[in-house]
Order: sequence, then structure tokens, then C-alpha cells
Amino acid sequence: MTVTAKSIKERSLLGLKDLSASEIESILNRAAYFDAQAEKLNPILASKFVANMFFENSTRTRFSFEMAEKRLGAEVLNFAAAASSVEKGESIYDTVRTLESMGIDAGVIRLKPHGMLQVLAEKVKVPLINAGDGNNEHPTQALLDLYTMRQTFSELRGLNVSIIGDIKHSRVARSNLYALQKFGAKVSFCAPESMQAPELAALAPYITLDEALKADVVMMLRVQLERHDKGIDMKADEYREKYGLTEERAAKLSPKTIIMHPAPVNRNVEIDDAVVESPASRIFPQMSNGVPIRMAVMERALIL
Amino acid sequence: MTVTAKSIKERSLLGLKDLSASEIESILNRAAYFDAQAEKLNPILASKFVANMFFENSTRTRFSFEMAEKRLGAEVLNFAAAASSVEKGESIYDTVRTLESMGIDAGVIRLKPHGMLQVLAEKVKVPLINAGDGNNEHPTQALLDLYTMRQTFSELRGLNVSIIGDIKHSRVARSNLYALQKFGAKVSFCAPESMQAPELAALAPYITLDEALKADVVMMLRVQLERHDKGIDMKADEYREKYGLTEERAAKLSPKTIIMHPAPVNRNVEIDDAVVESPASRIFPQMSNGVPIRMAVMERALIL
Amino acid sequence: MTVTAKSIKERSLLGLKDLSASEIESILNRAAYFDAQAEKLNPILASKFVANMFFENSTRTRFSFEMAEKRLGAEVLNFAAAASSVEKGESIYDTVRTLESMGIDAGVIRLKPHGMLQVLAEKVKVPLINAGDGNNEHPTQALLDLYTMRQTFSELRGLNVSIIGDIKHSRVARSNLYALQKFGAKVSFCAPESMQAPELAALAPYITLDEALKADVVMMLRVQLERHDKGIDMKADEYREKYGLTEERAAKLSPKTIIMHPAPVNRNVEIDDAVVESPASRIFPQMSNGVPIRMAVMERALIL
Repeated sequence: MTVTAKSIKERSLLGLKDLSASEIESILNRAAYFDAQAEKLNPILASKFVANMFFENSTRTRFSFEMAEKRLGAEVLNFAAAASSVEKGESIYDTVRTLESMGIDAGVIRLKPHGMLQVLAEKVKVPLINAGDGNNEHPTQALLDLYTMRQTFSELRGLNVSIIGDIKHSRVARSNLYALQKFGAKVSFCAPESMQAPELAALAPYITLDEALKADVVMMLRVQLERHDKGIDMKADEYREKYGLTEERAAKLSPKTIIMHPAPVNRNVEIDDAVVESPASRIFPQMSNGVPIRMAVMERALIL
Repeated sequence: MTVTAKSIKERSLLGLKDLSASEIESILNRAAYFDAQAEKLNPILASKFVANMFFENSTRTRFSFEMAEKRLGAEVLNFAAAASSVEKGESIYDTVRTLESMGIDAGVIRLKPHGMLQVLAEKVKVPLINAGDGNNEHPTQALLDLYTMRQTFSELRGLNVSIIGDIKHSRVARSNLYALQKFGAKVSFCAPESMQAPELAALAPYITLDEALKADVVMMLRVQLERHDKGIDMKADEYREKYGLTEERAAKLSPKTIIMHPAPVNRNVEIDDAVVESPASRIFPQMSNGVPIRMAVMERALIL
Repeated sequence: MTVTAKSIKERSLLGLKDLSASEIESILNRAAYFDAQAEKLNPILASKFVANMFFENSTRTRFSFEMAEKRLGAEVLNFAAAASSVEKGESIYDTVRTLESMGIDAGVIRLKPHGMLQVLAEKVKVPLINAGDGNNEHPTQALLDLYTMRQTFSELRGLNVSIIGDIKHSRVARSNLYALQKFGAKVSFCAPESMQAPELAALAPYITLDEALKADVVMMLRVQLERHDKGIDMKADEYREKYGLTEERAAKLSPKTIIMHPAPVNRNVEIDDAVVESPASRIFPQMSNGVPIRMAVMERALIL
């Protein structure tokens, strides 16, 4: 057996687009291992220092990473910066380099500027974990989504997954698309025209809502309506009527279909209140699964 | 000896109104035990994950809970949300359920919406500790207040306690009222008409300031003046003159009387600068006592 | 050997002005010891509770202290207050006394009001570490600056140090001035008239930029331009042209000269983009050095 030290690049997790199916599978399997553990604390990262660097607000995702890091015994430092003060890429670069200089062993990072994460990854000498970068990728979210699908369906191959909502601005949609296709799942999109992503049109078809709801997995995305700066101009009522997973629509789903959503949900906009915690919903299990997934990702970054 | 596992409900601390005197007493006694310990760290909550979920700002109360939790060796995660983004109860509900899904063992929560805490406690599967909910209760504050009174007076029975200030909007007043009466202390209120709580009138009399200052315990409340939305319209000077614990008034108190305040104080409004750290004042001891009280409450939630 | 317990005052670090050269040297030496350690965790502060109390925003400095504290195994609690809500000195006083009452063993504090830190240090019973107070001092920054200079030049005696920029409002300039002169280094200032500090004129000469750039150490300060409230009214372009360390100027520096900056930098204002990470720059090493310096300072506060 040849032991080869992994490079920083191999320890980082910038996206799922360039990760192999076997790499993804080993993360999912390792998450299952952590998920099955009775002990909450498994301090394999004792004396490792992890910085959660959030240049875009997300207390939930930060919380999930922090749970994962602390369950592994890491020392955790949180850095949050108001988007306004670090909107320029330069400032993010200086901040990340600063925290790196202070001796962190790995950094979890959420940021907005397109392409910035790749620039950082080239320059920084510690593994970086993408916790959401602009409209590009959100790999740990897609990993926990795949993990959640595997819990219900024995395998991903052949699975029909509909992603419904603001595809255009969704990093969740992109990471799921890239990952699911590696496993032979079939991804379809459903979105009003203003929320479609032309550059993804070659990778997955846009279908009607009626067709989309016939899938094994119905994944609703969070929508942010009335954002005129993004060319979106639809009222919540109208969106719900045309694209929302209403109680009526949910009642007509196949009993085998599961409902997913990356959260936080807009209740009674993209998904009805009563559907969020219905038996078919995997929304809270998704959140639970985020922790072992992120444990696996942090272990991969620092140990394996 | 029969060992019965306590229910989540019994581990939670939503308020003192429905807690028995003996339950309260055992918390006070356990706090005394922690208070007397020489060692700062007593890691009986090692590998327990506690979330401090503050949907209303309060860095002091959060800090006190965090001290208590860390002295017990718990893993602590802080979640603070700007009131604006989670003003709707639904959003608080989703957030708390999210953090619960991520595997916390107990949650400390401060929030504003009336009745929301009871809704949460019905749905959530981990103990919840009330760190202040709207105008309803603030049980750990009242517990530390009782503890502070016990330090000076050997027993609470027969004690005369005057609570002076904005009774109407005070959860501190309510929690103290409920708890003190269980121990046979006599509670009186003193407040301008706009700050009186009609629904409490049957439980404690409103008396004049002169009468109120004859009590064993003079508890001043923080007032927030000129809040027209709450029907309060009084200048600080006028309030101080009519209801403030001025240096002159403090000088006339019985030498046995102690002065309390839940803090933060408005110096020279409800209490004069020179009185805050006067010998009769227990204001900083109250803050010290908050830590062992919260240790006892967290132990009760997770261990006992 | 006579063992004398150090007083709180001796454990505190309020500034370098009143610290002896031998005290400073022993901090630098102790930092070198921590810097050389292979192990990241050295839990000599286990069971010590440290509060980082930031009444002025600075996530970087807070992060550096937190790294240092956690590497020493301390329990760390962060307290940050929006400047607006605690602008009045009274409120800072009450907050610090509150946190002290809750049982912290030492406090790291950043605040704005002039002279407030001295008032606090008189009243508080735990060591206080100055993490920047108004325009007065920033001792750990100057300590890490001296440490960084020692890394390049074998000794500080005789060293020529130019500090360039907004001397008037710079606590970094003051702390460096006081400390460097104790070791026989020669400090010179260079600043536009509106950024000169008249009260320091007797301690260090103001020289032209051309002269300043002949020093062994060229320390650029962060400038905040167009602050009319501070009497500063200069455009970024004009400042760069007159006082900035441009690429052209950096190219003409002696090969022995090092470039420093307390960060965060305004790229292309006081220092050009390409200079920040040039071989002569010590900007990121300064940040690295901040951690062992702060470890030494915290050890001194709590152990030695």
C-alpha cells in the first residue's frame, strides 16, 4: 500500500462539479459512519483550529458546521463580516489571508463574489470548504441532499429529481445537478422564465410543474420574490399558485415521492405550511443530516 | 428508591408561575453548591451541546448563561438573530426546530412574541430554558433575585419586597411576583399609572413610593421612557423625581433594606449613580449569582 | 528565591508607555518560546475564563486574541457591543463590571473613550489587556511589531523606524514610539499637517517622505480619508501621490529595508497592491506574530 499525502487542493471542497463519484461516495459513507455513532463527541480534530468565515450571513449553515466541528473536538473560531464592509473581493482576500496567517488549520467560507473562491484556493495554504459561494456551488448542501435521498431510496441511479424554483440564482440547484448526474440520477428543472439559467439548459430539461411533481424527489428552492435588481417581479400569491407546492398538489404526489427544501422555507410561498412537516417531507431530516456530512467533510480536510 | 426519568417538560424551565416552591428551593440549593465550589470548571455537562438562541438582543444574559454552561463543560453554540428578521413567530419556530434537528441537547431561548415559548415547548424534543420571553417571564432572573435575598435575609417568608417601575412591561416583575409569593413573601408594586399591569392588580397592591421604600427589598426596574408606542410619555427628570431611587431617598432607607435591580441600569433615571455601588446595593452580587443559578438550571435540564 | 505574587496592575497591559524595557523584552522572549513550539495547544490556561470585550469593532484583533487564548486552553467568551449603544463611558463601565462580576479571570478590551481604560483598571479586580483604546495605545500591536523587527534585525538599538500616515489618530504610532525608544531605536514621523500630533512633536521629528523611506523600517499606517469631523480632507489619489508607498517608491528602498503595516490595508491608497506581498513586506508575518505575542501577554496576565 502506497501512502501519499493529500494535497491542500485534495483536502479542500470547492464544489461537486469536479469531484468524482467515488470521492462523493466516500464522503457519504463516512457521514453514515458518524451518523451511526452513539457518542456525540469524537475528538479526532482535537488541537485543530477551524475558522468559519462568513462573508454572507447564514447563521444556520454556520451553526451546522460549528456543530460538526465541535463534535470532532476542533477549536472553532467564528468570523462574520457584514456583506457591506467586504463586498470587494480584495477585502475578502486580505481577511482570509490574515486568518490563515494567524494559524488556522482549515477554513469554512461563505462568500458572494463570483470566482473569488477559486482565487483564494490558489493562494491559501490551508484547506478551504465552500459553505456557499454566490450563485456557483453549495457542495455540503448537495451532499446532505444526496445522503437524504439515499436514506429513502436504496440507490441514486435512475432516480428522478425535480428541482423547482429560482434555478438561476441557486447554488443548491447547481451542486445537486452536478452531483446527481455523476450517479446516474435524472435531474429536471421547473422555473418561471425569469428564474431559468440559460447556461444549464444543456444539462437538464425545463419541464412543467405537473411533470415535475411526478418525480421521486421534489426539491423546492427558496425564492426571493420582487427582487427587481435580479429581474424577478412576481407576487408571492402568484408564485404559490403557479409554482408552489401547495397542500393540494402535495396530496396528489405519489406515496413514494419525497419532498425536500434546503431551508429556510418561505411558508405558503414556495411550500405550504402543512406540507413542511408532512410525512413525505424530508426538510428537518435534511438539517439533521447536514451535521454528519460536514463532519465527514472536515475529517477529509484535516485527517484522512 | 425509585428512579424515574424526568420528562422533557420537567427539564425545561419556561417560567416560575407553574413551578412548585420545593422545585425552586432545590434549584437555589444546588446553586449554593456550585457557588461554594473552589474549582471553576466542573465538567458534568461534557459532551452536551447547548444552544443559546437569542431572538432578542441581550449580550449580558447570554454571557451569563455561557459562563454557566462552560463552567459545566458543555459545548456552547450561540445563535443570535436580529429581531427584524425573525419577528414573525413562524420563523422562530423554524429556526428552533432547525437547531434541534442539528442535535442540540438543550436550548436557552430569549424571544419576544407572546405565547410562542409554550408553542415551541410542545413541539421541541429537548429542554428549553426561558431567558426572557416578551412581557411574560424571566425565570432565571427571579431565581437569582431570590438567591440574592436569601444571602441577606435568612428566609424569604414574611419578607417585604417592593418592585418599582415599569411593572406593565416587566417579565422580571412577573417572575419575582410568582416565585416570592410561593415562599410567603409579600410583594407590592409601585408604578405610574401608564406602567401598571391591570391583570396583576389582584395579586399585589400598588402602593406609594414612600410606602414602597419601607420594604426589606427595594427592587428598581429598568424603565424605557418616551416610548409612545407603549403609551409611556414621561421625561427622565420627571421619572427620577417621582419614582427614582435618588441618593436622598436611598439615605433614608432602613439600614436593613437592600437595593436590587435586574440591570442594565439607567443611572440617574430610575436609580442614582451613587446608589448603584452603595453598601445597600446588591446589583453586582445579583450578576455574580446569576452564574451559579444558571449552572443549577442547566444541570437540572440535562443531568439531574 | 523570593516569590512575590504579582498585583492585578502588574498583570494588566494598559500600554507600553509605562512598561520597562526589560518587561517588554521578557514578553518578546516568551512569545518566541510559544512561536517555536510544535504543538498548537499548550493548555496552561485551562479552566481560566477570558472575556474579549470589544466596544469597538475589530474582528481581526479579536480573532488573534481568541487564537492565542484558545491555544493556551482558556475558556473564551466574546462580548461585542455596537459602538452606538455603549458610546457613553458609563455604559462601558457597567458592562465591564458586570462581566467581572460573572467571574472572568481576565478581560481583553477595545474601546474608544479617552482615559476610560485607566478608570476601569482602577476599579476592576481582574487583569485588563488593552486591545486598542481610542487614540491612546495599542500595546499588543506594537509588541508584535517589535517582535517582527527583531526577526529581521538582530537588535532594536540603533534601528531607524519611520512611521508614515495618520499619526494624529494612531494608537499604533504611539505604542510603537514609546516602546521603540526604550530600546534605543530612532523613530521618525511623516504625515500631512492635518495628521500630525502636536503633543508628540517633542518625542520624534517629522521628516519628508524621501527621508522617511531611507529608514530600516518603513511602517505605513492605515488612513481614513475624507473624515471632515477629524479635519482630514484629502482624496485617496492625492494621498497616494504624496504619502503612499507606491510600487515606484518601494522599488527604490534599500534592500535591507522592511515594510510594515498594522492592517487592514487600504490597497492603492497608503500602500500599493503589489507592495503588500512583496519580499520586503512583513505585513502577513506581523499577523502571524500577533498570536504568540498575545499568548505571552495572556500568560503574563494569568500565570507568570
